[in-house]
Amino acid sequence: MNKWGTIATWRMSYEGLVAASQLLTEQNSAADAVETLIQKVESYQYYKSVGYGGLPNEAGVVQMDAAFMDGDTFAQGAVAGIEDVQHPISVARALSRNHYNSFLVGTGATQYAKLHGFTTTNMLTARAKKIWENRRAQLRRQSLNPYDGHDTVGAIALDQQNSLAVGTSTSGLFMKKPGRVGDSPLSGSGFYADSQVGAAAATGLGEDIMKGCLSYEIVRLMAAGCSPQQACDQAVYPFIQKLQQRYGQAGEFSLIAMNTKGQWGVATNVEFTFSVATSQSHPQILIAYPAEQQSTKIQPVTPEWLAAYEKRIKKPLD
Amino acid sequence: MNKWGTIATWRMSYEGLVAASQLLTEQNSAADAVETLIQKVESYQYYKSVGYGGLPNEAGVVQMDAAFMDGDTFAQGAVAGIEDVQHPISVARALSRNHYNSFLVGTGATQYAKLHGFTTTNMLTARAKKIWENRRAQLRRQSLNPYDGHDTVGAIALDQQNSLAVGTSTSGLFMKKPGRVGDSPLSGSGFYADSQVGAAAATGLGEDIMKGCLSYEIVRLMAAGCSPQQACDQAVYPFIQKLQQRYGQAGEFSLIAMNTKGQWGVATNVEFTFSVATSQSHPQILIAYPAEQQSTKIQPVTPEWLAAYEKRIKKPLD
Repeated sequence: MNKWGTIATWRMSYEGLVAASQLLTEQNSAADAVETLIQKVESYQYYKSVGYGGLPNEAGVVQMDAAFMDGDTFAQGAVAGIEDVQHPISVARALSRNHYNSFLVGTGATQYAKLHGFTTTNMLTARAKKIWENRRAQLRRQSLNPYDGHDTVGAIALDQQNSLAVGTSTSGLFMKKPGRVGDSPLSGSGFYADSQVGAAAATGLGEDIMKGCLSYEIVRLMAAGCSPQQACDQAVYPFIQKLQQRYGQAGEFSLIAMNTKGQWGVATNVEFTFSVATSQSHPQILIAYPAEQQSTKIQPVTPEWLAAYEKRIKKPLD
Repeated sequence: MNKWGTIATWRMSYEGLVAASQLLTEQNSAADAVETLIQKVESYQYYKSVGYGGLPNEAGVVQMDAAFMDGDTFAQGAVAGIEDVQHPISVARALSRNHYNSFLVGTGATQYAKLHGFTTTNMLTARAKKIWENRRAQLRRQSLNPYDGHDTVGAIALDQQNSLAVGTSTSGLFMKKPGRVGDSPLSGSGFYADSQVGAAAATGLGEDIMKGCLSYEIVRLMAAGCSPQQACDQAVYPFIQKLQQRYGQAGEFSLIAMNTKGQWGVATNVEFTFSVATSQSHPQILIAYPAEQQSTKIQPVTPEWLAAYEKRIKKPLD
């Protein structure tokens, strides 16, 4: 078997990554693996920052962003602020086949999906609505920063034909203003792929990730000879320092990368879970933390962590 | 007087650049200079790819994109698919002051502008409507590629306090699909600025510019020691070759750059006019062409060229 690999952001990507690994083992394309991985996350109702079950914006509307990039050709497709569409990643992938009009936003994106036969559905679950109602009530009582929760599924795949693909999907920042877009659909910020080098994807506070074009920078550093881990460390940690110095603060963010050998890396300024599999290693969930001297500490996730996560995402709501 | 400078895309930027130069001479901020320059272009009815008088999308609706970036802090604001707003650049600049929700698209962007008191108006002029009607009739008669015309105003300013700012504004690709977004509002693709290094902005086929994150790459090359002209040449021409090899084609695009010394550069694969002024040189309009060995030929625009341009943009329509 030729080498292959796949890496994706957060615990929520694991079931999709297992499916993607199977596809890659069977010589399917990196593009199919990425789309399948992300579709699984979009479909699972308990993941509250992506697809069905994703948390709505301030107005109670689920507006989603997604992107797809083919590392062979640099072809990209993206949607932002799309509504009522079951699989934004599939719309993004379809758009990547267009030479013109490959990035659509707002009602134009939703109309395109409907016209082209993509499945539509109400993406607001009862649970997500309840979380939104609770949050609104809490914000009325207390003066809080309304914004937290911005976990994008970002996924990279390397197939046995040496092609790389990357995709992202998110319902964006919880309680965002209508029409708000983060880094996920933006080339070079949320994602980038070059099949002769490697690929990268981001999750976190999009407003800050796009200030550094971090996915592009990681791929560039790999092109200059860095391993994926070196590239992640060298792109992310100095940029966090720079943001703190120049902008006065840096939001939470985490990046993943994989190169043409199936080697991978991550960097983060929070506790960051991710899943990874290669032709040499079974699918697993790992957890990363920022460590000393601009490095990243990575270890297997514990059964206790996984149990607590499972309990948390399904916790009965008041 | 301390050094200052400003450079902006296309002939259409000239009147705004003269106003921006005056502001910079008087020690106003780079941010004010960029906003003023772009507002002038947005207001002029005969510039058919930006603001008032901009050509509509396929459905006859003028949807505009704009962005603003402060090179001191990396703060950014952007809008895409905004409608009925007189000065998209001013909305983008206002959004750049937000830590969250700094990039808004579609109806959310338009609502924000209305809520915050930005002037709204019907941006579709009788002339732009006529051009659209003629184009539709022509497309019904002939099987043509419907897309041409995608001239963004991109503007960079360096002020006497050594701050850099960059902005973009466009009505996008003529006859685009509803909701289509190009590179102009995308960080690193349409624009990028770092007051310790330099700034860059792009115009052309956004779908291809975003495949290379060209504005970020130019700023990065300047940080690595390149002059603005070297950075433009080294970022743009190899990428055009790479696109032709890997994607099979490369759209038209042109990039501008300026560094902290007020030195500037451009690169293009078409005939590309731009305007530039510095503390050492009066405002002028220059014309650039791709030249041998991945270089750029730049010369003053002729009176004949300017007269033909003036006649063309005001030509009576059938």
